[in-house]
Amino acid sequence: MATIKDVAKVAGVSVATVSRVLNSNGYVNVDTKKRVDQAIEQLNYRPNDVARALFKGRSKMIALFVPDIMNPFFPELARAVEDITNKNDYTFVLCNTDDNLEKVLTYMDALQQKSVDGIIIVSSTITAESLKRINVPVIALDRIFSSELSTVTVDNYQGARKATEYLIGLGCQRIAHISGPINASNAKNRLQGYLDIVSDEDWFLPSYVASGSFNLQKAKDVATELLMNHPELDGIFAANDVMGIGAMKAAESLGIHVPNDLSVIAFDGITMGEMATPSLTTMEQPIYDMGARAAEMLIEQINDQKLSRKNEAFSVQLVERQSTKRKRDMNE
Amino acid sequence: MATIKDVAKVAGVSVATVSRVLNSNGYVNVDTKKRVDQAIEQLNYRPNDVARALFKGRSKMIALFVPDIMNPFFPELARAVEDITNKNDYTFVLCNTDDNLEKVLTYMDALQQKSVDGIIIVSSTITAESLKRINVPVIALDRIFSSELSTVTVDNYQGARKATEYLIGLGCQRIAHISGPINASNAKNRLQGYLDIVSDEDWFLPSYVASGSFNLQKAKDVATELLMNHPELDGIFAANDVMGIGAMKAAESLGIHVPNDLSVIAFDGITMGEMATPSLTTMEQPIYDMGARAAEMLIEQINDQKLSRKNEAFSVQLVERQSTKRKRDMNE
Repeated sequence: MATIKDVAKVAGVSVATVSRVLNSNGYVNVDTKKRVDQAIEQLNYRPNDVARALFKGRSKMIALFVPDIMNPFFPELARAVEDITNKNDYTFVLCNTDDNLEKVLTYMDALQQKSVDGIIIVSSTITAESLKRINVPVIALDRIFSSELSTVTVDNYQGARKATEYLIGLGCQRIAHISGPINASNAKNRLQGYLDIVSDEDWFLPSYVASGSFNLQKAKDVATELLMNHPELDGIFAANDVMGIGAMKAAESLGIHVPNDLSVIAFDGITMGEMATPSLTTMEQPIYDMGARAAEMLIEQINDQKLSRKNEAFSVQLVERQSTKRKRDMNE
Repeated sequence: MATIKDVAKVAGVSVATVSRVLNSNGYVNVDTKKRVDQAIEQLNYRPNDVARALFKGRSKMIALFVPDIMNPFFPELARAVEDITNKNDYTFVLCNTDDNLEKVLTYMDALQQKSVDGIIIVSSTITAESLKRINVPVIALDRIFSSELSTVTVDNYQGARKATEYLIGLGCQRIAHISGPINASNAKNRLQGYLDIVSDEDWFLPSYVASGSFNLQKAKDVATELLMNHPELDGIFAANDVMGIGAMKAAESLGIHVPNDLSVIAFDGITMGEMATPSLTTMEQPIYDMGARAAEMLIEQINDQKLSRKNEAFSVQLVERQSTKRKRDMNE
């Protein structure tokens, strides 16, 4: 394979001159440029990405940080980001951070070494301070952790209000919320939406909150405790679908029928919720669209680093399935 | 940040000499080496990965090709590969190929340009021929598509025999198989295991086979057709868990009770099967261990490209859940 040195030799110029021609920067005499172009063609020289990264400090690589690709919310997001990066000739790097700040910093250093072009981050723990370690555009996806970044999210607060109102509309009067980790902006906003509705003066319902950490087993455990301590509960709003499934498993193990005795609504719209029996009513996020939009915004920022900060929030949509039902005493 | 040029200037040597010192190759005078080392220290110079890749043709990057990360079998595999690559200071690149040969070739060219160090491939369609485009170690994971590569799989044939025998042991006499795409080696071996058991002279049972393409909706459709055309069916062995869930959905929609009227067993051991109601009996693969082993083997091969080819097959394990049940007439 021909190297940049071979091109320089054939063209009778220096390597630096070939590099200037390749990167279209700096002055090059028209005749010289012609000689270099001819040498490139003659030798069938293709500068590889590694060389290009060294010259330009750009690698045609984009990274996505997620807590854990095994959490079923993230594969669709990752697929969307990869589809867009691939379409734009970027290579897609995936990093599982376990939302552990030390791991995040190690990834950042490694990616900096590789001249990564930009990063999309889903995180609750990264500090604005730690972002200073890396000198490339960053988009915050799904969760907001720094006011300085462009973000792609959904309207978590409105979605949570709608979910809670929906249960009230079905006749539920004793509604519990299983929340996500409270340092995550999305979990915090969903909790607030729930609280604002149940405590609204129109209804003034009691509130019941337990943290399920966005985790199925944890949600099953806290839902079991809630349902045992509060047999009066007739509705649960879980802050994500895997916790909604955990809540249904808890009800099943206690002999509480969903949806006859208890309505369960969740948040996300992952396939697993559709597959569950009963299938899970949920506030559906446009997961694929969110990932794709974040990747597009990142590429725009890579191409024009002077672009101003953007915050885009998609709306969520109620998808009614089998886990919720109008209470019988409402119909009578 | 200091560059290799700065080091050369301070040490009073050429860039090529600094490069020889950095890469410990070629002759360098002891005094010269000392001067270079001092210059490196004085300038706090750190050759970045991009420069290293250019010199050594190695990038500290490993790629994983999967058909689609949204298929719930792959996130756990990807997580395992990423854990091992990360532990060994490699960056993890994920490519969704849709099992489309043209996409695969485009990825290969892009990764070659980036001097990727090795690739782990899950594929049914890649030809040995197309692998010649890329000059790095490759491990075939989950499916075997070239006899020239090292592989990490499970014993699909034995696993399928055991699944089918298990249904017979429960008293099932009319057992259907929902197969994967027949160009995938794992699907082919699972089909063969099923066929060899039902046609065994000990039982000589009829066989019923329909292809569900490892896809939930497709499996639901073909299972609906099978169950309508053959009301005598009392057992289904699906070649993967998502198709097992599809078969259960088909039975549910036809008013056929699982497991009272129909036992369903599948293959994989993904979380979604555990979450389904009824929870899905399955032949569980050690998915995480497979991914981790493939990554370890790849790194061994990157470090010693003379290593001989290895084929490792994990065994699978029966996990009994709620979707299978001894037939009542067997107990009476």
